[in-house]
Amino acid sequence: MEANPGGKKKKNLVIGVDVGGTKIIAATVDTSGKILGSKKRKTKAHKGVTSVIDRIIKTIRQAAEDADTSLDKIAAVSLGFPGPLDAEKGVIYTAPNLAGWDNFPLAKTLEKELGLPVILDNDVNLGTLGEYEFGAAAGAKSVIGIFVGTGIGGGIILDGKLLSGRNGTAGELGHMSIDYDGPKAASGIKGAYEALASRTAIVRDIEKAVKDGKECILADNFKGDEDDKRVTSGDLKKAIQSKDKVVTEILDRACFYLGVGVGSLVNVFGPDVVVMGGGVVEALEDYMMTMIKKSAADYTLANALKGVKIVPAKLGDDAVLMGCVASAWRHFKIGQD
Amino acid sequence: MEANPGGKKKKNLVIGVDVGGTKIIAATVDTSGKILGSKKRKTKAHKGVTSVIDRIIKTIRQAAEDADTSLDKIAAVSLGFPGPLDAEKGVIYTAPNLAGWDNFPLAKTLEKELGLPVILDNDVNLGTLGEYEFGAAAGAKSVIGIFVGTGIGGGIILDGKLLSGRNGTAGELGHMSIDYDGPKAASGIKGAYEALASRTAIVRDIEKAVKDGKECILADNFKGDEDDKRVTSGDLKKAIQSKDKVVTEILDRACFYLGVGVGSLVNVFGPDVVVMGGGVVEALEDYMMTMIKKSAADYTLANALKGVKIVPAKLGDDAVLMGCVASAWRHFKIGQD
Repeated sequence: MEANPGGKKKKNLVIGVDVGGTKIIAATVDTSGKILGSKKRKTKAHKGVTSVIDRIIKTIRQAAEDADTSLDKIAAVSLGFPGPLDAEKGVIYTAPNLAGWDNFPLAKTLEKELGLPVILDNDVNLGTLGEYEFGAAAGAKSVIGIFVGTGIGGGIILDGKLLSGRNGTAGELGHMSIDYDGPKAASGIKGAYEALASRTAIVRDIEKAVKDGKECILADNFKGDEDDKRVTSGDLKKAIQSKDKVVTEILDRACFYLGVGVGSLVNVFGPDVVVMGGGVVEALEDYMMTMIKKSAADYTLANALKGVKIVPAKLGDDAVLMGCVASAWRHFKIGQD
Repeated sequence: MEANPGGKKKKNLVIGVDVGGTKIIAATVDTSGKILGSKKRKTKAHKGVTSVIDRIIKTIRQAAEDADTSLDKIAAVSLGFPGPLDAEKGVIYTAPNLAGWDNFPLAKTLEKELGLPVILDNDVNLGTLGEYEFGAAAGAKSVIGIFVGTGIGGGIILDGKLLSGRNGTAGELGHMSIDYDGPKAASGIKGAYEALASRTAIVRDIEKAVKDGKECILADNFKGDEDDKRVTSGDLKKAIQSKDKVVTEILDRACFYLGVGVGSLVNVFGPDVVVMGGGVVEALEDYMMTMIKKSAADYTLANALKGVKIVPAKLGDDAVLMGCVASAWRHFKIGQD
């Protein structure tokens, strides 16, 4: 579907939608990148595909209403979605830990429901694109985005273009091994970047220390029920500020690992900018960036590192959303005339 | 300088030149990729820059003569050179272990001497381009070339274009760390790919085993004078064929490491083809490729690996030379009209 199949006045508004594991955020954005209206709701992914699609559609409609406009004034909808997908065809390969999404034609399904052109891409790719167009990497030509959360996600922009790779899987930095005999990631890959340096890995190591009887300010977080959010990025920040020995040691170690991966990626890609984002890095930006850069320098060729900027992300939660918008602008050539 | 500044009949012949640490090979090639004439001589790098340049020029002239032609019939000269350089400016940053080459404007110097347009690029990039245009990766869109020798060199082609990176250093795969606490490469980087899986690393481990008193068919190679060629790829092949236990164990291990790196690179780039080349791989192709592929599968996401071909190089010593030719065709649009 084309963005403006024969319309007289060209439509310019885009709705970006960040579909996350826990929440859906949609925003109506004009050609200057200004958010005119937005809406957020829970994803409730466990309720299944049909429910999630209903919730996406409702959120999109309300993001238009919140901008005092209606869907017929919208040029296109652009979605960020987690996990492996085919951006060109708008098909989700699979959604991590969720049934029903296998080979699901999400873009076409939404196009039918909304009567609008819909595109989608991997959320981490779009987060990197957002930082490239509006954030920490503005003005660079080639950028690597590294987002540290439950796992480690990556996006790669070379000469201004997102690298998608043969199966839409390029940028799976979290599964690069930096320790061939190290702990396994969920993927089964030993010493995978995310098995050493994600929030999950950090929390795993803190839990182990607590169980080994070490004194730790976060010990209480490991009592009671299982819950994947039992240590938040905010908790980590508080522990570091309190100079908790266990947490400091483990986080320092994670920063070292993050730097090892940054070094390898700089050797391999020769980017202008490496953007580090995600909840953990945002919460402890200065503290972590100093250590990440130090370790990266030890794992990068001097020639390759020259002039490369290693910087924290700037857009926080808006990175994916703004990447959606930039992607729609590119795809439908919006705001270029 | 343009390839054909105002000439009536467009010149179509290209001279490719592979400038290696030990030998210079030049070949005159027509638009079908056929080698019409060639010449080889020793580099004698220790004699210094002026001597090497004289030898390059002499080799180029003789490659033209060998094709029954003269320099005024040549459209362009295209060089492959080891080590870090700026391909766009034709400047050598530095030549490993050789004085006098720092920031040397090699392309311009040769242009003046020959009266011909001269371009140059990293030899491993060009080896990858050669395999892409004429060899094991023909027909692919995105290719990673991994060449195992004294070190491990890499070339990356994405959507048909060589990735050069910010400082001309993209593709420094040999310095990607797959073991953050492992043995150091010459660069000082711990657990660098080439510190674990290059011929240098393999020979280092065999030497250690021999010194530790283990029985090994290659023990005699470590007697007498220091010499960086004391174990050739041919020696390794003979040892494997004789089922030497020490060499087999060490080479198997190197194949495992090679596969770890291949896995990480496939996760990160999502290429169509990974081409493995260099002396060691050529000598023991079938033996090594089977093990490399097995280990790569353990270190790659299933989604990312789907349909990716991991294949041995086809062009051997001609890969760089043919990459030079392909590079000149692209640069000067030769044979496209």
